[in-house]
Amino acid sequence: MNYKKLKKRSYEILEKGAPDDTWSRRVDFFIIFLIFLNILAVILESVRSLKEEYQLIFDFIELFSICIFSIEYVFRIWSITEKEEYSKPISGRLKYLFSFFSIIDLLAIVPAYIPLLATVDSRVIRGIRLVRLFRILKLSRYNRAFGLIRNVIRSKKEELVISLFAVLTLLVVASSLMYFIENKAQPEAFSSIPATMWWGVATLTTVGYGDVYPVTVLGKFMAGIMAILGVGLFALPAGILANGFGDNLDSKNQSKVCKHCGKNIDE
Amino acid sequence: MNYKKLKKRSYEILEKGAPDDTWSRRVDFFIIFLIFLNILAVILESVRSLKEEYQLIFDFIELFSICIFSIEYVFRIWSITEKEEYSKPISGRLKYLFSFFSIIDLLAIVPAYIPLLATVDSRVIRGIRLVRLFRILKLSRYNRAFGLIRNVIRSKKEELVISLFAVLTLLVVASSLMYFIENKAQPEAFSSIPATMWWGVATLTTVGYGDVYPVTVLGKFMAGIMAILGVGLFALPAGILANGFGDNLDSKNQSKVCKHCGKNIDE
Amino acid sequence: MNYKKLKKRSYEILEKGAPDDTWSRRVDFFIIFLIFLNILAVILESVRSLKEEYQLIFDFIELFSICIFSIEYVFRIWSITEKEEYSKPISGRLKYLFSFFSIIDLLAIVPAYIPLLATVDSRVIRGIRLVRLFRILKLSRYNRAFGLIRNVIRSKKEELVISLFAVLTLLVVASSLMYFIENKAQPEAFSSIPATMWWGVATLTTVGYGDVYPVTVLGKFMAGIMAILGVGLFALPAGILANGFGDNLDSKNQSKVCKHCGKNIDE
Amino acid sequence: MNYKKLKKRSYEILEKGAPDDTWSRRVDFFIIFLIFLNILAVILESVRSLKEEYQLIFDFIELFSICIFSIEYVFRIWSITEKEEYSKPISGRLKYLFSFFSIIDLLAIVPAYIPLLATVDSRVIRGIRLVRLFRILKLSRYNRAFGLIRNVIRSKKEELVISLFAVLTLLVVASSLMYFIENKAQPEAFSSIPATMWWGVATLTTVGYGDVYPVTVLGKFMAGIMAILGVGLFALPAGILANGFGDNLDSKNQSKVCKHCGKNIDE
Repeated sequence: MNYKKLKKRSYEILEKGAPDDTWSRRVDFFIIFLIFLNILAVILESVRSLKEEYQLIFDFIELFSICIFSIEYVFRIWSITEKEEYSKPISGRLKYLFSFFSIIDLLAIVPAYIPLLATVDSRVIRGIRLVRLFRILKLSRYNRAFGLIRNVIRSKKEELVISLFAVLTLLVVASSLMYFIENKAQPEAFSSIPATMWWGVATLTTVGYGDVYPVTVLGKFMAGIMAILGVGLFALPAGILANGFGDNLDSKNQSKVCKHCGKNIDE
Repeated sequence: MNYKKLKKRSYEILEKGAPDDTWSRRVDFFIIFLIFLNILAVILESVRSLKEEYQLIFDFIELFSICIFSIEYVFRIWSITEKEEYSKPISGRLKYLFSFFSIIDLLAIVPAYIPLLATVDSRVIRGIRLVRLFRILKLSRYNRAFGLIRNVIRSKKEELVISLFAVLTLLVVASSLMYFIENKAQPEAFSSIPATMWWGVATLTTVGYGDVYPVTVLGKFMAGIMAILGVGLFALPAGILANGFGDNLDSKNQSKVCKHCGKNIDE
Repeated sequence: MNYKKLKKRSYEILEKGAPDDTWSRRVDFFIIFLIFLNILAVILESVRSLKEEYQLIFDFIELFSICIFSIEYVFRIWSITEKEEYSKPISGRLKYLFSFFSIIDLLAIVPAYIPLLATVDSRVIRGIRLVRLFRILKLSRYNRAFGLIRNVIRSKKEELVISLFAVLTLLVVASSLMYFIENKAQPEAFSSIPATMWWGVATLTTVGYGDVYPVTVLGKFMAGIMAILGVGLFALPAGILANGFGDNLDSKNQSKVCKHCGKNIDE
Repeated sequence: MNYKKLKKRSYEILEKGAPDDTWSRRVDFFIIFLIFLNILAVILESVRSLKEEYQLIFDFIELFSICIFSIEYVFRIWSITEKEEYSKPISGRLKYLFSFFSIIDLLAIVPAYIPLLATVDSRVIRGIRLVRLFRILKLSRYNRAFGLIRNVIRSKKEELVISLFAVLTLLVVASSLMYFIENKAQPEAFSSIPATMWWGVATLTTVGYGDVYPVTVLGKFMAGIMAILGVGLFALPAGILANGFGDNLDSKNQSKVCKHCGKNIDE
């Protein structure tokens, strides 16, 4: 009886998250705080002077986070059978293991266990340290922003794919032409089409670092035409995203009612 | 009787600002002119040659402004009891003292009195001189633009917060990856994740100063992908603001009534 | 009789421009061609090698244009009395002389006569040569684009002024803060607030030449925040113009009909 | 009989492309794959080290592609008479030869035959190699994106032409003024108006490479004003394209019919 109650309570706190459940909100808040602390730690640990001075604190945060996230992971798998969808003890839990959120939770803890299981060189360890950054994805469970952006991308999928295709085509064509024009004058910077694409991206996104730019008259003329024409095309995905963003929030806030029958259109 | 009349007239001139009140408009115009003169003075005073040559004029403008703004402040507090909201002599005035506009008025004059009360070093004095710039905020009382922008931000608050959160997440992730990729090739410019964020901001906002940019093939490849994908996300707040701006002015300016039958078009 | 007919015909050809008037269209076409030829000449004449080699051709184009434009100007003033608005021989012509298009026509020819009337130094002559470029404004008589852009700006005047005001305020505040932060580290590039505004414009418009950028940690942090926040504000005028452009063309193409009474809203 | 059947089948596979025709889809897929392989080969072949090492593979891809594309071209011309529009054996085929898609198909193979017919120098050969890139245009037969972009440009033709005209006018005027201002201080970078236009394009598109920028106070002031005012104008084509893109997809995707009563929402 006690065991069943605990499992049900775990499920309520971790998964269900009823708005009036104080403990659920406290646990949520604690985990969100821990995620932000982790991101901050990863960022600050990359500064050599801070890393050397506060090594102990960073190590403690890491150890503490691994414990909490591991416990959280185990409790989630244990209690998930409370949910109707995953109610079968074994097949239900397996199904949950391969769900989107569960995989993220696993990825948040697994890399930390690798050095315990095998000898790894220093570069791998640095990689593992960086992978911790993806604990930021654990926020997607709590944050509306991720869901919204996913919705926007999904609803504008076709437009985005088409404009991305157009952008890449333009990039390839512009870079190839520029390679042909500038290669002789600047054999270093415009050494090949892939190399020239670095110029193409910097120009067409209007970043313009200034490390590569055409120097011949023809090259400058082509670059000018491409900048004027191409900038519009590269701004397309941004415009589409902005529109999609607006649509998604609008459709949530507004009650669209049919003028003829008075019923809600979206239902 | 005379005292009461003067207080009422002060209130009318300073606060109420009826459109047909000539003196009120003259005083408003004078204070706005003084604010612009102050901003111009702060800007020009920062040019060493001008400062040395016209020190006297700058000092006079400052002294004169302080006097006027101080008198304005005192008169506002004295006469504010004419307004029903603040009609109680003491608690009403205290309440007004902590209102948004009153705090701005105080901040516009207080720094100038600090050197009179305490000995301060030259850096503080330079700071005080700069703080005068925030007298520009006094314009918010007269200018519709400030109110409009505040309305736009308020009405699009949710969208802006979400897109800002997405922007920061992308910045952290992109900078961390780039740090991992470029750190070995350029240990100076990409010395840590916070340092790499300087590259990230310059790239994703498309400013692209050109002081830091990837040099490795993998780094350039990543930077290209990030520029193409990320630029869209960073343009989101701009798009949201532009939409919000349009919505706010539209809903205010348009009557949207049919000229022929007088009914609302949108109904 | 012959004189009157000629005046009427001049007016028809130069001003009225009926769509089926072959000669009117030929003259229009010829003047437009001449304007483009002039612009091309000004641009190419600035290239020293071309100027030296083809001096004769450039001089001929200039002389020829002055003649044609002068004749055009005289004929316009002479024949304008055919128009009801300007029908009085003297006061009508005077009124026309100070109309928008007439002033442009005058400015297109007057500078060329200055060297004939007075001795002028070489810098003035160069200036006069450049002023010829403004003959491009003569196109406004023939081109819908100028009229449309004027309409867009007029219809969005309020929004544009407000956003321009916001943009300038941000520029002043951002530059002043940056001046205070970076002045010590880079006394050359950030020597005064006006000097720092050069950085401010380059950053907030995302041009980012890379000739000035902050080097201190605090400066980079401030610049990053300003870039993220400010870019949105600087993109406002662009967004407003784009919207206004769309609205103006839409309202021309679409027949907006009131749902209640079926009449056109815009009439 | 067999001949006629084969021709009909060729037509069905190459041109008609019924959705349930397995072989048609297989051939389509194969040709699309070959086009992408060609683009990849052109890009990678430009890298010297790859070209030297994998010369044989590149040559094979080229030879193979030419064969396939030539066969495809011949079969298309042969079988096109099955289409009612081109049913006449000679005049129909001639008409088809000059259709848009047929010209692209021809351009995709003809350059490769040039070296067989005449002795050409190495620069021409490099050009021919690059021209292969335009095989990407063959995708337009299969890809919706090309058609959509063509539709968008067509539907917004007027707006795009006007804004392009405005953009070019601004570019000419801004560059001419800047040439006049900066020419003395930087006779190299601002040597003529066409040379200054390189600065103009880089600034007004906000690319800002940083290879040319004004150094005089007046030049910086002018550049600042132009950047603030001009950026909005240069962003116009982008905004127009984005709007047009949205309109075209919207009108196609949405049924806009109320689910409850079946009537059109917009009526």
